[in-house]
Amino acid sequence: LAKPRRADFHAIILAGGSGTRFWPWSRMARPKQFLRLDGGHSLLASTWRRLRAFVPVERMWIVAPEALARTVRREIPDLSRSRLIEEPSPRDTAGAIVLACARVAAKHPDAVVGVFPSDHVIESAMAFRRSVEVARRAAEGGALVCLGVVPDRPATGFGYLRVGPLAADGSHAVERFTEKPDLETAERMVTGGGHLWNAGMFVWRASRLLEEARRVAPTVAVPAERYAAGSARAWSRVEKKSIDYAVMEHAEGVRAVPLQAGWDDLGSWEAIVRHGSGVADANVIRVDSEGSRVLGDGPFTAVVGVPGVLIVHAADAVLVVARDRTESVRHVVDRLRREGRDDLL
Amino acid sequence: LAKPRRADFHAIILAGGSGTRFWPWSRMARPKQFLRLDGGHSLLASTWRRLRAFVPVERMWIVAPEALARTVRREIPDLSRSRLIEEPSPRDTAGAIVLACARVAAKHPDAVVGVFPSDHVIESAMAFRRSVEVARRAAEGGALVCLGVVPDRPATGFGYLRVGPLAADGSHAVERFTEKPDLETAERMVTGGGHLWNAGMFVWRASRLLEEARRVAPTVAVPAERYAAGSARAWSRVEKKSIDYAVMEHAEGVRAVPLQAGWDDLGSWEAIVRHGSGVADANVIRVDSEGSRVLGDGPFTAVVGVPGVLIVHAADAVLVVARDRTESVRHVVDRLRREGRDDLL
Repeated sequence: LAKPRRADFHAIILAGGSGTRFWPWSRMARPKQFLRLDGGHSLLASTWRRLRAFVPVERMWIVAPEALARTVRREIPDLSRSRLIEEPSPRDTAGAIVLACARVAAKHPDAVVGVFPSDHVIESAMAFRRSVEVARRAAEGGALVCLGVVPDRPATGFGYLRVGPLAADGSHAVERFTEKPDLETAERMVTGGGHLWNAGMFVWRASRLLEEARRVAPTVAVPAERYAAGSARAWSRVEKKSIDYAVMEHAEGVRAVPLQAGWDDLGSWEAIVRHGSGVADANVIRVDSEGSRVLGDGPFTAVVGVPGVLIVHAADAVLVVARDRTESVRHVVDRLRREGRDDLL
Repeated sequence: LAKPRRADFHAIILAGGSGTRFWPWSRMARPKQFLRLDGGHSLLASTWRRLRAFVPVERMWIVAPEALARTVRREIPDLSRSRLIEEPSPRDTAGAIVLACARVAAKHPDAVVGVFPSDHVIESAMAFRRSVEVARRAAEGGALVCLGVVPDRPATGFGYLRVGPLAADGSHAVERFTEKPDLETAERMVTGGGHLWNAGMFVWRASRLLEEARRVAPTVAVPAERYAAGSARAWSRVEKKSIDYAVMEHAEGVRAVPLQAGWDDLGSWEAIVRHGSGVADANVIRVDSEGSRVLGDGPFTAVVGVPGVLIVHAADAVLVVARDRTESVRHVVDRLRREGRDDLL
């Protein structure tokens, strides 16, 4: 590994998420990262502010699909246009990250970059900043660093990192990636210790990531770097793969830095309820409806004799869903798609 | 009984209903009779039109609380102001009916009147008209005639009339009034025959009803007639009683004429669902939600994993209620009252 040398830190925010889990709030033109789920701020704006607290604006980058570029600029007016990296079409996280690292490295060859999803919640900005600082020092030494969330439950919706002993620099070697496990495996990993959740946040030298990507994932790295260098047609040849699957699981020198900052990926309506969003009691009456919840700006809502129901108001749609059936909301979106109801998608 | 003499027929519509069963659609200022439940027409307007088909407008009367008088005039612009009878305060049906009969009899001493609630649905205007015609002939002979609905199920929400054999004039003697029965009794009455539902529709000579009311219900009839004659203070002394309880159960010469016209009192949300009101499928998606229904003009609604739920949209409120718990909607109204939410009442 290269001998550590001090380098500027750049932050790359991935704003390319899409999805249907949060219908009717999230839409094609307004996916989850734009939802005001974090005390009135969009998740993207919160991510931006959390990083801006210690990263100068001229080292802040956002990667987003072309179709969302205007929305991103409206949401983040401080962002310089030259640091908004537009993807002509979605190519999953590996393509987006290689493209962004190539753009940063072209101007700042020594830069250490942190890569952050834009649709997570982090309660403690202070704890987050400390972990990033530890990760940055490890990355200066050449490591590919994952921020690993200390698990507090046997979640089956996340990937896990098996890590070795804690080194003096505050990082652990990553010994294995485990994709979303079954409950039994998850329980074993959480009670046995030595495992962290893979939260999709990374810190590394941009040049080091590119080097490793070229070696283990050339079908992603070669066309993505060509596109970054100016070949417009190269983008469509970027293979669609996640950064974990394409690079991290095969790379050398992968380390993890623990993060204990009240992280949540808000991956489901249940997570949003758990995070405490909900309509004030003044606008809801419940009769024999234990565990029912109302979310969103909507009319006064009365719930009678329907326990465990979640009611989600949006401007042009209402969702009434059993709290243990929220994963089936995608069937609603499928039907809307089949029926050509673009007004509701 | 007086010898039959041909008399003009007047129609009296009772528009005084109030209630909370249909919150959030019905409100204090807009009770059930004003709801557009009958193919886009309010129940009151449908009642008016059904009668106007065979009653000249100068023989049409409406009794309504003072507070609803403007709403009635807006809804029924044909109604002459001199035939809108205003009740200063609610005194139940006996007071309203005696007042109206006294007003009609003062100008038309021989009149036969039909008394009709304004919040029922009747599918066949033709069958209704025929029953009223039969009832009117019996009333010319001095009978107090109930229109009795031929039961099609052992409903426990209605009063029943036990009737004797069919007479040549198409009417039956009423032998007994049974208040809302338990299910077993209702089943016995319906399968055993000889019973009709008391639908709260009556036909009689106005003078004859007044005479009988004075005899069996003087605490209603005396002050109500005094009020009709001009004594404003008398109204508050009218005892609050239903016409059945005050007069019909004790009167002489009570007869019933069967009505088979697709009558429904729309007494519950279930009845409204049964009557076929509901939001078109284009504006609703159901996933694993058998028996769920959506009523009212509202945003697009998706129901996921919540069978048997009723969702009622109003402009400023939404009700989500288990279809077998609709009677508990009154608890919502009670809470709104206690919390002073007049905007929602």
